[in-house]
Amino acid sequence: MSAGWFRRRFLPGGPLPTPRPAGPHASPVPYRRPRFLRGSGSSPGPADASRRPDARPVRSPSRGRTLPWNAGYAEIINAEKSEFNEDQAACGKLRIRRCEFGTEEEQEWLTVCSEEFLTGHYWALFDGHGGPAAAILAANTLHSCLRRQLEAVVEGVVASQPPMHLSGRCVCLSDPQFVEEKGIRTEDLVIGALENAFQECDEVIGRELEASGQMGGCTALVAVSLQGKLYVANAGDSRAILVRRDEIRPLSSEFTPETERQRIQQLAFIYPELLAGEFTRLEFPRRLKGDDLGQKVLFRDHHMSGWSYKRVEKSDLKYPLIHGQGRQARLLGTLAVSRGLGDHQLRVLDTNIQLKPFLLSVPQVTVLDVDQLALQEEDVVVMATDGLWDVLSNEQVAWLVRSFLPANQQDPHSTSAGWSSQVLGIGPNADTQHTGEGRFHGGRTGVLR
Amino acid sequence: MSAGWFRRRFLPGGPLPTPRPAGPHASPVPYRRPRFLRGSGSSPGPADASRRPDARPVRSPSRGRTLPWNAGYAEIINAEKSEFNEDQAACGKLRIRRCEFGTEEEQEWLTVCSEEFLTGHYWALFDGHGGPAAAILAANTLHSCLRRQLEAVVEGVVASQPPMHLSGRCVCLSDPQFVEEKGIRTEDLVIGALENAFQECDEVIGRELEASGQMGGCTALVAVSLQGKLYVANAGDSRAILVRRDEIRPLSSEFTPETERQRIQQLAFIYPELLAGEFTRLEFPRRLKGDDLGQKVLFRDHHMSGWSYKRVEKSDLKYPLIHGQGRQARLLGTLAVSRGLGDHQLRVLDTNIQLKPFLLSVPQVTVLDVDQLALQEEDVVVMATDGLWDVLSNEQVAWLVRSFLPANQQDPHSTSAGWSSQVLGIGPNADTQHTGEGRFHGGRTGVLR
Repeated sequence: MSAGWFRRRFLPGGPLPTPRPAGPHASPVPYRRPRFLRGSGSSPGPADASRRPDARPVRSPSRGRTLPWNAGYAEIINAEKSEFNEDQAACGKLRIRRCEFGTEEEQEWLTVCSEEFLTGHYWALFDGHGGPAAAILAANTLHSCLRRQLEAVVEGVVASQPPMHLSGRCVCLSDPQFVEEKGIRTEDLVIGALENAFQECDEVIGRELEASGQMGGCTALVAVSLQGKLYVANAGDSRAILVRRDEIRPLSSEFTPETERQRIQQLAFIYPELLAGEFTRLEFPRRLKGDDLGQKVLFRDHHMSGWSYKRVEKSDLKYPLIHGQGRQARLLGTLAVSRGLGDHQLRVLDTNIQLKPFLLSVPQVTVLDVDQLALQEEDVVVMATDGLWDVLSNEQVAWLVRSFLPANQQDPHSTSAGWSSQVLGIGPNADTQHTGEGRFHGGRTGVLR
Repeated sequence: MSAGWFRRRFLPGGPLPTPRPAGPHASPVPYRRPRFLRGSGSSPGPADASRRPDARPVRSPSRGRTLPWNAGYAEIINAEKSEFNEDQAACGKLRIRRCEFGTEEEQEWLTVCSEEFLTGHYWALFDGHGGPAAAILAANTLHSCLRRQLEAVVEGVVASQPPMHLSGRCVCLSDPQFVEEKGIRTEDLVIGALENAFQECDEVIGRELEASGQMGGCTALVAVSLQGKLYVANAGDSRAILVRRDEIRPLSSEFTPETERQRIQQLAFIYPELLAGEFTRLEFPRRLKGDDLGQKVLFRDHHMSGWSYKRVEKSDLKYPLIHGQGRQARLLGTLAVSRGLGDHQLRVLDTNIQLKPFLLSVPQVTVLDVDQLALQEEDVVVMATDGLWDVLSNEQVAWLVRSFLPANQQDPHSTSAGWSSQVLGIGPNADTQHTGEGRFHGGRTGVLR
């Protein structure tokens, strides 16, 4: 992005983004469920027979359909919140062309495998909000963005060390030494490709939603297996964990207004006009009211991880930039997440205040060295949106996985005998046994193995 | 700070800070060594007798003078770099008045202890650059700022849980619950006081240096013991570790252009005019040159923790915002640290580009629960500037401490028989035995126990 882009895009007086002319893009993004659910209809999963009357239907891939690494998948629709499921998922093989970039841009996502391709796998969960359109576009687009980004650097990815110049031409004899000193490894190129793919996908979603006059955003949790490593990229409040016999390893961190408070307050400090005089960037334990005026109350500002006291002035009575805690925490009173895709048009109700400058589409990427981990048959990666993690802890999910797997080893639909042939979907019954609420709360669970 | 402060202070067209009228403040900050070194003259430390001809003199407190918790201290002057030691240190008792704030502002630092005071201890190292003035001002001032900040919140610090209102008046019956839900503990008030004290001290240094026409900055590493906890606040590239029999626990993180690359690049992305067209915010493995034009080279931008390739344009040939790696990494080609106090007037050579907007005076604070740790006689906290850590690893320092302590238990100057009567200074001989360079490189070592 060019210098000054941020200001031109978000500050008053800057030109608004040019609307795309109406055309094929002007039609709304059609609603659909993940492709791998085709054929499973709306029939509930195998756990349905014993579900309680108040439990909602669970969908999972039909029997006989295997996902990469025979991953399992289950989703439910939160009928209380929306008629349609705002969430999406995607998975498939990644085939990265090892040749000059840009020669066959029309190539389809799935192609015949050959020696010229670097292959991997891709799984993704998108937790939508404000409508299903952004999550659908993300499920349709992000893997293509990632493939393009990987193809642009693939010669570096397959090298033992990424060369300073992609052409391999050595401008300076010390170039390999400079790269070595920076500690740049091939996995850094995959991390960079994931980061750039999220940005590219976010821009595509912004353009498409603007053209079709739709709204919405989504979180994105992506796992990619490539060259013996598993990359987990997360933007939002979904979570991935690795469950092993004696270990639960977090593979992601959550990005919410609470976890990113200082970054968000810092932006409001540097650009106060982003709040249009309607919000205070300061955090207080609760929203202040007239009775607090003149009193010294607990607060913290952008530079503080600790707390202090300040004497309350009238401007402190404004609505806080970040307010509430836990599941109730909101950015500008509107959003529960601070990273994700979409939301380009989202504004605070009845104002012109934009959410987007405070949102990042950048994921945090963690890398698991699968080849070196000596994974066992019972090791499982669990990826799920906040609906699961709001009601079950990492330990409870791990307990469920460890309990479920050994008991289902004879069912080819839900278990396997080897590394790459395991399927598991955690149904709502497991949930109802272990939470007071008895629901996933719209959560979806994907388990890879 | 008021809304818009950042822009008014740092962007072209904003008013310059009003110079203070000449007066008592217009005289330069007088050079001195830490007060606790008085009486020790310039005589080398006890390790001097065996030092090599090329080793520089070591200063430590004179025999008979004890520091809080009988800490040890050693410093050397890097005669190759400067005639005077740019570094400073301070330590003393903290006495926090438990009464209304602002009634006796003229009160001296050291006062008679009484029941009305909350007492603690304070140790600090300041690694100066660009002249000794900032470090001297920090050594003279920071403890007073901290005392003021703590006195402003002391009623909350001594409570079992900080009240929403400092007055204790309950405006809303649920206030204790709001504070509880935010998880605000008394230690958060001490953390907040340290964060605010660093900011306040930075402002004082800015005013004083401007008035006296001096330059300079310093890192700050501070340890404070209060109510059974040890707080370590760090802004810069110094480091503190806790050495125990079976454990080495880091008590701080370093803040350098490398460790804070994304924050610094992000600011340049949001405010490109801070670079005045002279620098590129992109990072490359080395500085690019004409031969690289048109080639695809490794780079990363503010949103990336990974790397990618970009085709080199002319603007990429500018000097990078952050350049070099390890000890050679520099911010704007000028500074090796990204946090610290002072440097308000520092500009890139022969330009009007300011360093300050990229520098933070905010420390990161870690808390050690001394009461719960069950510390043993041989447990030691080592605080040192980068001069030590550039040549010795945490493990090497721990090995030295573990070797030195048992062998010196009969020397009251360097060891003790109990918790609060231990003195230890690591001299250069220990260093020469374990590094190829045989020097501290201007490093100073403070060991608290």
